[in-house]
Amino acid sequence: MKFITHSLSVYSVQSVVSILLSRIIALAIFPAKHLAWRVHIEIVNTGTELLLGNTLNTHGAWLGAELFKLGLRVARQTCVPDGEAIREVLVEALGRADVVLVTGGLGPTSDDLTREITAEVLGLDLVQDAAALASLEAFFAIRERPMASDNLKQVLIPRGALALPNPNGTAPGVYVAGRPQGAIFLLPGPPRELQPMFLAEVAPRLRSLSGVAVPPELLELKFTGVGESDFHQALDAHLAGIPGLEFGYCARLGEVDLRLIGSAAALQQARALAMQHFAPQFVSDDGSSLEQTLLRSLSQRGWTLATAESCSGGLIASRLTDVAGASAVFTHGFVTYSNAAKKELLGVAADILDTHGAVSEPVARQMAEGALTASGADIAVAVTGIAGPSGGSPDKPLGTAWIAVAQRHGATRAWRVFQPRNRLDFKQGVSQAALDGLRQCLLDRRPED
Amino acid sequence: MKFITHSLSVYSVQSVVSILLSRIIALAIFPAKHLAWRVHIEIVNTGTELLLGNTLNTHGAWLGAELFKLGLRVARQTCVPDGEAIREVLVEALGRADVVLVTGGLGPTSDDLTREITAEVLGLDLVQDAAALASLEAFFAIRERPMASDNLKQVLIPRGALALPNPNGTAPGVYVAGRPQGAIFLLPGPPRELQPMFLAEVAPRLRSLSGVAVPPELLELKFTGVGESDFHQALDAHLAGIPGLEFGYCARLGEVDLRLIGSAAALQQARALAMQHFAPQFVSDDGSSLEQTLLRSLSQRGWTLATAESCSGGLIASRLTDVAGASAVFTHGFVTYSNAAKKELLGVAADILDTHGAVSEPVARQMAEGALTASGADIAVAVTGIAGPSGGSPDKPLGTAWIAVAQRHGATRAWRVFQPRNRLDFKQGVSQAALDGLRQCLLDRRPED
Repeated sequence: MKFITHSLSVYSVQSVVSILLSRIIALAIFPAKHLAWRVHIEIVNTGTELLLGNTLNTHGAWLGAELFKLGLRVARQTCVPDGEAIREVLVEALGRADVVLVTGGLGPTSDDLTREITAEVLGLDLVQDAAALASLEAFFAIRERPMASDNLKQVLIPRGALALPNPNGTAPGVYVAGRPQGAIFLLPGPPRELQPMFLAEVAPRLRSLSGVAVPPELLELKFTGVGESDFHQALDAHLAGIPGLEFGYCARLGEVDLRLIGSAAALQQARALAMQHFAPQFVSDDGSSLEQTLLRSLSQRGWTLATAESCSGGLIASRLTDVAGASAVFTHGFVTYSNAAKKELLGVAADILDTHGAVSEPVARQMAEGALTASGADIAVAVTGIAGPSGGSPDKPLGTAWIAVAQRHGATRAWRVFQPRNRLDFKQGVSQAALDGLRQCLLDRRPED
Repeated sequence: MKFITHSLSVYSVQSVVSILLSRIIALAIFPAKHLAWRVHIEIVNTGTELLLGNTLNTHGAWLGAELFKLGLRVARQTCVPDGEAIREVLVEALGRADVVLVTGGLGPTSDDLTREITAEVLGLDLVQDAAALASLEAFFAIRERPMASDNLKQVLIPRGALALPNPNGTAPGVYVAGRPQGAIFLLPGPPRELQPMFLAEVAPRLRSLSGVAVPPELLELKFTGVGESDFHQALDAHLAGIPGLEFGYCARLGEVDLRLIGSAAALQQARALAMQHFAPQFVSDDGSSLEQTLLRSLSQRGWTLATAESCSGGLIASRLTDVAGASAVFTHGFVTYSNAAKKELLGVAADILDTHGAVSEPVARQMAEGALTASGADIAVAVTGIAGPSGGSPDKPLGTAWIAVAQRHGATRAWRVFQPRNRLDFKQGVSQAALDGLRQCLLDRRPED
């Protein structure tokens, strides 16, 4: 596909005045901080539903992550309702940015004005794009649906711009090359249309903007059982000293991803540094989740797995079965939410429950061993704890849980965790600790340490 | 708490010039569309992590939904990195808005500059707030942790502004009343701090701005088993005809919330209209989830519940146990992911499995009845299906599932659902259908119809 590099020369007077005014004011009043970015990129999201709380705006995070992989960063993201509001924002963004990514407003309804307003702001006519029209007609033909005439406005493209193919929807994207104003990409709003289009059409064009002759490499290391602040303290100063390395963290409950961008040598150095401090917490370097990594390890041994859950209420089983192919390893899950179920399904002894209570080391051990016996699996994990909001006591406060791992060959291990969080975060945190405990047992580590 | 209404009179010359310039240019170049809003509200999010793809920005959707409940709408949302970038955005937003809600940048680190830059833009000194200092000291005392001196900057408040208590963190919020510039609320970035602070401190102050003598009432009706487009088609034209009614939808997989705002009479009319079309799909009018509604119905009957899951892999159990107090109703969960588990734990007959396959009506029925017997529960639900990505066949394509409900007193019901989606959405959709089937059985409806 041809990369359009010609200049766009026809501008409306009003647009030029307002774009220039914005830029002059921005530079006059504020120190031009943003010029420190290699490439100033802005995202403009249009969509009333994004501002009414109907729909979560995931474009910022998704595009931010993809741009980071290209060595680029977003300087500003703005969201406005459908319709005319995009005009003002677009002029402002073009007054500051080298590249503006606009999402949404490319559809067939009267509120979808992104295409029209962009053309007006740039002083360009809209012309029908023959290739886009052919794709649109094919889209409806394949689905054996008649095409409403409203759809035709979707294949109007500012003169001189490029229509970007949309294999997943009716609205093509638009690329307007960046001279003299910033380059503009118009992208469809639905993530399942936007994301493939960004990867196929936008990323290759942006890569050349990052100003790096050899595109940097990306490495993502996933860790569990350690907090982001531990990484900051142990690594930040050292990582900052590696020439040409960019790094960032992505933390979720019980998990931290370390994202590294740079030359192969820089990545190797950074990886060695991270592993020196956090090897026991390392999960994967290929994006695999803890569940995926664990199931792969078990599968390689030919082992099967059973779960016995009280306070996590089925979340461990559900996380495991989120992974395609889990059925080859995970066979039996017991959600023993009542004491009766613990006795009936797992053979936990009544006197142990009476003496120690359901949230105790001996009950966790009997649950894990009972699950192993009842399922015939090679390894089993059990959790029992107090999720709250009620049920805590001074010696077993809310957030207390016992986890046990039983193995066909080897001693049962049990350990206590304490996660005083809200109910859902507690379930997530305990399930994470249980999956991580399994992982450590497979590595012959002692999760109770 | 005193509501601050005095004017702020000390402005820096640069700030006033730039705020006025922004407003003049905005009004001169663009038709003042936004004056049509009753109150022009903008959200400014600061946080590098929100632009790097590390963290999903949920503030826009959450605040948008809460503001909608107050009869208010967001005209623009802007996100910038931590640090100095907020200065430019704040000046611009104050040039347009009646109310600016700023999130993030109130912490103790050197990147947290929201408080300082706001004071500079407004030309106000920062002064230590005695009440906020006392709260901060108490926060650390309760946790028996020493307070680093960095934290002290968090209790500096622009002179004349109000510190907003933060019971969930160290950084108080800030409220600067709105004369002559727009009112400003500075809120902490973490949702678990921001959300309670908004509800306790911001919403009551904004309510008086909505310009309606009697605040409109809000009604949220939750439905399941029906799509948003069905609502559009059946209701939109009629709802639009009810005077003074505002309405919106919030759709998730298998669920639609209808949000209504208006006078009591308008709400009553809208509710009657919605129920006329979608009574069988109605779940709740008090924000209760399907799980909560179902558990409440069971609890009122004194019934217990068991689950038997194959393709949903524990997700039904996990969703039920997300609800506090689920243990009074939900006692036994079986995740029978292998055929062996279906036979051993639920007594599914080997010849039925061989003849009909695991994904079939007779197996679903035997799973539900087996769960009932093995648990002693009053009602049990079972699901078996093909989640994919592999395992489909022409007569049982990917996305096929059978659901059955068995009851201690009453016939077992079974029905087929077809949800050709990705693995996670399939699990979510099937679990939704199963929970809804239970709900319908309790209402003596036939979910198979």
